[in-house]
Amino acid sequence: MTRVAIAACGIIPFTRNDQSIESALLESAADLFKSSQVDRDSVDAVLVSTNSNSKYLAPILSETAGLRPDTAHTVENLCNSGTNAMVSGYSYIASGLADVVLVSGAERYDSPGQVLKWDRSRGSFMHPVFWASMLAKSYKRRFSVSDEQLAMVPVKNHRHARDNPNAISKKACSIQDVMESKKITDDIRLLDCSRSCTGSASILLASEDAARGLCKEPVWITGIGQKTTSAGFTKNESLSSLESTRIAADAALHMAGHTPKEIDVAEIHDAFSVCEPMALESIGLCGSGCGADMVKHLYDTESRMINPRGGLIGSGHPLGATGIAQAVEITQQLRAKAAKRQVDGARIGLVHNMSAAGTSSTVLVLER
Amino acid sequence: MTRVAIAACGIIPFTRNDQSIESALLESAADLFKSSQVDRDSVDAVLVSTNSNSKYLAPILSETAGLRPDTAHTVENLCNSGTNAMVSGYSYIASGLADVVLVSGAERYDSPGQVLKWDRSRGSFMHPVFWASMLAKSYKRRFSVSDEQLAMVPVKNHRHARDNPNAISKKACSIQDVMESKKITDDIRLLDCSRSCTGSASILLASEDAARGLCKEPVWITGIGQKTTSAGFTKNESLSSLESTRIAADAALHMAGHTPKEIDVAEIHDAFSVCEPMALESIGLCGSGCGADMVKHLYDTESRMINPRGGLIGSGHPLGATGIAQAVEITQQLRAKAAKRQVDGARIGLVHNMSAAGTSSTVLVLER
Repeated sequence: MTRVAIAACGIIPFTRNDQSIESALLESAADLFKSSQVDRDSVDAVLVSTNSNSKYLAPILSETAGLRPDTAHTVENLCNSGTNAMVSGYSYIASGLADVVLVSGAERYDSPGQVLKWDRSRGSFMHPVFWASMLAKSYKRRFSVSDEQLAMVPVKNHRHARDNPNAISKKACSIQDVMESKKITDDIRLLDCSRSCTGSASILLASEDAARGLCKEPVWITGIGQKTTSAGFTKNESLSSLESTRIAADAALHMAGHTPKEIDVAEIHDAFSVCEPMALESIGLCGSGCGADMVKHLYDTESRMINPRGGLIGSGHPLGATGIAQAVEITQQLRAKAAKRQVDGARIGLVHNMSAAGTSSTVLVLER
Repeated sequence: MTRVAIAACGIIPFTRNDQSIESALLESAADLFKSSQVDRDSVDAVLVSTNSNSKYLAPILSETAGLRPDTAHTVENLCNSGTNAMVSGYSYIASGLADVVLVSGAERYDSPGQVLKWDRSRGSFMHPVFWASMLAKSYKRRFSVSDEQLAMVPVKNHRHARDNPNAISKKACSIQDVMESKKITDDIRLLDCSRSCTGSASILLASEDAARGLCKEPVWITGIGQKTTSAGFTKNESLSSLESTRIAADAALHMAGHTPKEIDVAEIHDAFSVCEPMALESIGLCGSGCGADMVKHLYDTESRMINPRGGLIGSGHPLGATGIAQAVEITQQLRAKAAKRQVDGARIGLVHNMSAAGTSSTVLVLER
């Protein structure tokens, strides 16, 4: 099978700006072309990932960016739209239908993807914070974890975000700040939540032959795992673990031929504080029930191994852009171009992106 | 490369019903599973094509249809969303990421994809009928074609639709009926237009190995061509031909190793009457300027070679379902299962699906 590389990246600051989705997409694509030697005529496909209700965005991005691709369309799957579009781009190249694919994700702060209208399992409580609250309560009870321990996730990730010039968060916070922030439910406070925002990120995928001509430091997609278990979280096998993440991570690591211990740096989908330890366990980066301990260790040692750009909580969460922004970060880490955020010697990276209470997950393994 | 087959099909009647998009998707998928021996556990990916603003439809369809796929997401590119999703399904299989992919398209009669909000080239005239009107005027002037000649398209296609139990149109019309139907613009009358409607169609794609186990009569996707030239029709190279269709058809026929003359049966994207002769020319099924003559010949000889199910004008045009419904028809034709609509001895078929004044086109070649 053709190997597939990440040959170039583009990203814009995540903000609360009232920017159009078309303009955000164009800006991150322009950043990608500005920072690479890519000939626009070489782009065979343009995939846009977003939850926006705007239609025909891939041809619009193509026209505004000066591209005339063969394939152009939008991919949507709520919060893991971005990695779904990347996996589609991978398959277009690995199948031989394309050599070079631009994958651009964007969202506005007022995205319609933030309200789960179809899932009536929580009655009229349609915002994701309500499922996160149930996961948090279940996780805390099962593993005797305190609110203060979970609060280390946002403290750590806001700290990391201070070294990410594109993050929406600019200031550090303490465990006390998290505990004193507004209580939204019994188990979730304001600072436990990632913030919806306006943002965009782009990535250029290329076949091995094309990548060699396009860039000096290709980063290879060596592992892909995806799983959809259901559409509503009440069908999850447990409220304190992430089944779709476990299955996707196993598949991605198997495909890449690696064990979780070999991962040097990872972007984890911390939509809410509790998601980070749950995902660490489900991916196998620590044992079941040890996620909060691993977070404490990362916190105490100031390790940047997990969510070096600040995760969703620190960077902001522009839904359709998030998975691509995660991959941009890991690419920069593997190229040793992550500036103050750099994890020394990072060689094997992982991206974990999920949707709707972990009913869908995507895991990617990237290597330089 | 792995060969990719259409192993099963499902479709529901196209109506003006107020059915939810989730229910329409499930009904056509259920029809597919009912009419085949497919084990639901074998489905590796579920791709939904639609212009609906509803989110997370692929996991919702998966859960309601009893599927737990690896990959699940929505594909949108206005009117050729359906064939875009099929091409993605093809690439997932040809790349080795999946063996069996369910592609389900659906739309409601009130789809938000029917108004082209981004394209300000016609000022406040945002409905597709206004670009179709300009194409019709340009085509008629360039090739000295009369309104009566173009009216043969809807007369022929409504006639075909009478033998399609899933078509929205149930009655034949005459050239006089078309000419006397309400004038919407100088060049387009009501009966020149395809009708927006509620509908759904599903197709199961499979690798060669999987297809052999799933069905007796696989139909192979032997040619794929796609092209996006722009997002707004004012950038088309001409108002009387379809550049994206020409490029996509050339690529698809080249990949399949066929000439246009070898095509036995074709579904053509007749969103408006003028689109059919323009597409026939751009695909190469007749010479430039000869589309109206070819339509007249088909009309006079009662040939069903073009749009045997009634095309978009006769069947109805549920945007995200249309490309898949076209592929379902060609599959039934190649399997000699098209009942009264059957084109005798059809062996090589073609699907032509496009968006937004032909700024994007997809062409597929199918063979038994």
